[in-house]
Amino acid sequence: MRQVRVALGDRSYTIHIGAGLAANASLLADALPALKILVVSNNTVAPLYANFLLELLRAMGRKVHLFELPDGEAFKDVTHIQGIYDALIRHDMDRHSCILALGGGVVGDMAGFAAATYQRGIAFVQMPTTLLAQVDSSVGGKTGVNHPLGKNMIGAFKQPASVIIDISFLRSLPDREFCSGLAEVIKYALIRDRDFLVWLEEHMDRMIARDPQILEEAIARSCQHKAEVVINDELEQGERAFLNFGHTFGHAIETFTGYNTWLHGEAVAAGMYLAASFSSALYGLSKDKVARIKTLLEQARLPIQPPTQMASEDFLNIMRHDKKVKDGRIRLILLPELGRADVLAVDEPVIKNQLDQIMVGQDA
Amino acid sequence: MRQVRVALGDRSYTIHIGAGLAANASLLADALPALKILVVSNNTVAPLYANFLLELLRAMGRKVHLFELPDGEAFKDVTHIQGIYDALIRHDMDRHSCILALGGGVVGDMAGFAAATYQRGIAFVQMPTTLLAQVDSSVGGKTGVNHPLGKNMIGAFKQPASVIIDISFLRSLPDREFCSGLAEVIKYALIRDRDFLVWLEEHMDRMIARDPQILEEAIARSCQHKAEVVINDELEQGERAFLNFGHTFGHAIETFTGYNTWLHGEAVAAGMYLAASFSSALYGLSKDKVARIKTLLEQARLPIQPPTQMASEDFLNIMRHDKKVKDGRIRLILLPELGRADVLAVDEPVIKNQLDQIMVGQDA
Repeated sequence: MRQVRVALGDRSYTIHIGAGLAANASLLADALPALKILVVSNNTVAPLYANFLLELLRAMGRKVHLFELPDGEAFKDVTHIQGIYDALIRHDMDRHSCILALGGGVVGDMAGFAAATYQRGIAFVQMPTTLLAQVDSSVGGKTGVNHPLGKNMIGAFKQPASVIIDISFLRSLPDREFCSGLAEVIKYALIRDRDFLVWLEEHMDRMIARDPQILEEAIARSCQHKAEVVINDELEQGERAFLNFGHTFGHAIETFTGYNTWLHGEAVAAGMYLAASFSSALYGLSKDKVARIKTLLEQARLPIQPPTQMASEDFLNIMRHDKKVKDGRIRLILLPELGRADVLAVDEPVIKNQLDQIMVGQDA
Repeated sequence: MRQVRVALGDRSYTIHIGAGLAANASLLADALPALKILVVSNNTVAPLYANFLLELLRAMGRKVHLFELPDGEAFKDVTHIQGIYDALIRHDMDRHSCILALGGGVVGDMAGFAAATYQRGIAFVQMPTTLLAQVDSSVGGKTGVNHPLGKNMIGAFKQPASVIIDISFLRSLPDREFCSGLAEVIKYALIRDRDFLVWLEEHMDRMIARDPQILEEAIARSCQHKAEVVINDELEQGERAFLNFGHTFGHAIETFTGYNTWLHGEAVAAGMYLAASFSSALYGLSKDKVARIKTLLEQARLPIQPPTQMASEDFLNIMRHDKKVKDGRIRLILLPELGRADVLAVDEPVIKNQLDQIMVGQDA
């Protein structure tokens, strides 16, 4: 088992990474001291893992209930948060109760938002079951839901009390979802760790084969990066924005396609490749390096092109509502170099022009 | 103008108290540096004050929009929060935009909750227009909405960027609402300031006559108390719970009557008198002192008895869901002495027995 500490004063916590952690009774007993626990999961993950976990926690004397969300980003909205509130109240959960998020990023975001806003905040523990959630969304305290006009428009910063990353969960993860998680792993390498990038280029085959040793290494390095960024900039006033590399375009793709066609990591992969092309045009990142990014994304079986039906105007209409907009200029995260990120406020016509060029290039 | 500082590190802010502050351009310019501002108000307050404020802010170059909620605690729910989100998005408000809450406690709680959860948190400024909001809810960062099963069940801690208390607003406040606010003023005296209690006993007549000097004094002293308690215990782990004196019973009355018959301060007044009776039975507070509390509440034209149709079981059924419950015992705030509060975890049968005795006493 590896551990990564997220040092945030009285909001500090530990990320535990290893195989079989969800069945580790002493770890669970430490991480979940509350008497009453609501396990929030979804109807894909719960049938696989929830019963075992509920029994284990009950054997420890905890009063545990399960709430199942429908599986999918399409249900990540305020209406389904209400369902969690209702369950919390129905089971007489109080301020000292705890929510355990068992699932992917959507479950974690929603369970975390419910924890942030139930009785003005109760504790929650992340037990992420997808690679995406394990390397990204379960760490750092971003919680929230979507609005028809924009992703994660409604939310709060709420750090978990701990994160339990059981690599064994990944065995049941479908290939597409697994690869979607790789997009965020690649992101850390691109924005802040050139050595990790080289390591990924060398180990992507074993990663795709889900070699447990390689997975533990990649997840721990990713969590370490995430933790460092969050420690430096918890509320995203500066450096944390770099984690949005590829995400401004990616969110636009997800919003355009309605959150249910593209997986998050797939949209981010195409967004990262767009951002790499912007980095080449606006920051002089060499074509060779853009090509290396393309190769690595393809090795990870990720898409690099946005939906063909999506025009530059579609991107701009959605990106205007992005949280990173300030006074009308769109802030893009770009790569001056592999392993280093920067932010650039770009006027809309420049973005439109660049997108048109890239997308014409793709059609050809 | 008086000022009270709420010192909370990087969440510190100032409460400004005086007549005519809402028309003080230099104060507004300082308090509202954001380019885009959404004024959240209700359909009672907005027709009186919103236009003037919008014009003043526009003359300063701010892009200002107004969102009106229906007036009343009955509309303090998640559905109406969605309306605020929609307005924020429709007007392209971003992370650097600001919400200005112009209204009473309900407006402040809802605008604050929207600010806490829009794009994971944007700034908001409180401009309370009722006495209740001026002395209590606008200070301290409690925000939220009700759930059919309990008051303020959904919410967040979110400190305002500043509080602008314009005493002139009180001129248009109906008598019942004005007196409702006095309940919270009396509360501060009862739980932490015996001198203030004597001052209130001496000045209640001039207060009821809305003497501006007396009002400014009473509001500033109340805000000072609120600020001190919030500084000591922002997240209500300890002392802040004392501010709930009378509120556990009061919330039960409001929930039972559906949030639209009793005003908050009226329910709190009846709750404080119940808590005073409990203090007499469980802590030995003398009958004379309970009688002084009764006299002061009556001078402030506040009710001291709960709704006649409400039985002890009705109180318990609702109080069980209260946020102050821990592992089944109900935590009551009681007065060992005038000007001093304490918390006591009480078993349900004791509460039922005591309530039955008090309410039999009232019927007689």
